Amino acid sequence: MANSVKKARKGEATRLQILQVAERDFAELGYDATRLEAIGDSIGIKRAAIFYHFRSKRELFEDVFAGIHSSLVAHTEDRLAGASDPWERLLLLVESWVDFMVARPAAARLILRNCANAEHPDDYSPDFSQNALQMFRDIIADGAATGRFAPSASMHLVNLLSGSILHYVCNPQQLGDDRPYRPDDPAEVALFKSILRRTARAIVDPG
Amino acid sequence: MANSVKKARKGEATRLQILQVAERDFAELGYDATRLEAIGDSIGIKRAAIFYHFRSKRELFEDVFAGIHSSLVAHTEDRLAGASDPWERLLLLVESWVDFMVARPAAARLILRNCANAEHPDDYSPDFSQNALQMFRDIIADGAATGRFAPSASMHLVNLLSGSILHYVCNPQQLGDDRPYRPDDPAEVALFKSILRRTARAIVDPG
Repeated sequence: MANSVKKARKGEATRLQILQVAERDFAELGYDATRLEAIGDSIGIKRAAIFYHFRSKRELFEDVFAGIHSSLVAHTEDRLAGASDPWERLLLLVESWVDFMVARPAAARLILRNCANAEHPDDYSPDFSQNALQMFRDIIADGAATGRFAPSASMHLVNLLSGSILHYVCNPQQLGDDRPYRPDDPAEVALFKSILRRTARAIVDPG
Repeated sequence: MANSVKKARKGEATRLQILQVAERDFAELGYDATRLEAIGDSIGIKRAAIFYHFRSKRELFEDVFAGIHSSLVAHTEDRLAGASDPWERLLLLVESWVDFMVARPAAARLILRNCANAEHPDDYSPDFSQNALQMFRDIIADGAATGRFAPSASMHLVNLLSGSILHYVCNPQQLGDDRPYRPDDPAEVALFKSILRRTARAIVDPG
């Protein structure tokens, strides 16, 4: 293998490591308190080396969001492949989002933080999630257009379902200290999905 | 009126002003980026004068949360007074939370930020909302104990309903830029409440 190829692969691996640690730090600490030095320390490179891959802290922040977003869309498209009924597509989308967020809790926390930060001058990535939410909205619009879903109420499903998935993953203590749950416990995931299914059914059913 | 009484009233008014501006700034900027100087500037007092009322930025932050929390509990207790049926109490609680958060969006944003910040070293107030969530949990436990609610699934209602109320208030752009809504539009509030009611019914119904 030529040296240049080896070098490129090593560079790509370092880039991915930076993104991974940055996702964790931005999620836990927020934009302002995240330090590039600390990210470098975590993976054994200097702060300056980060600038070889990302022009600025801001660019790194937005690349983290872009990465989460494109992974989520790809993951969801995979799960929806072949399904054409709006109801089936809605359930598959919701379940694939639960699975994605459970497997990647730092991403869930980052998105939840972004929801809270819509008025923040820099700890906010406005373009994030546009495509993912558009998939959701398209399914709902399709269901309404074909008479499968009640038209008026169903747009708030986006809020209701996506919001509660984030809270499920980020706040296992919300049910009380006496009843903490593990968001990645398969039985808890199954119970939570069944609740989302009943919720979706109650709201979209034209009745 | 004695001078000492006048002075005490003026002090109390200043204290409330500080809390109000701090609620807005902590909500929009987060803990780290909030500046006591800027809070002082907003109400025409010096940074040092804030320390007459609050020992530290940390104490101010926690007093903001404590204030939101006790207002929410008092507001909810008012609305629930006289209602004894668990289902009626559940609906009243949910509606009173919607009304509270719609009227006080900075509080909603602060709570949403707090949900996202559960792992943050300082931008997090761990004791917040314990009593408010306990009211919610008590109603659910009561409904389950009396056979009015399905027992297994209902605990996740706390997550589903309270989370979606916060998102409803904080993210009116989530339904798409083509369909922004005003969270305080009475027709939108009524629609959203009807969705929460259907959701609650679908989940707690013993079926």
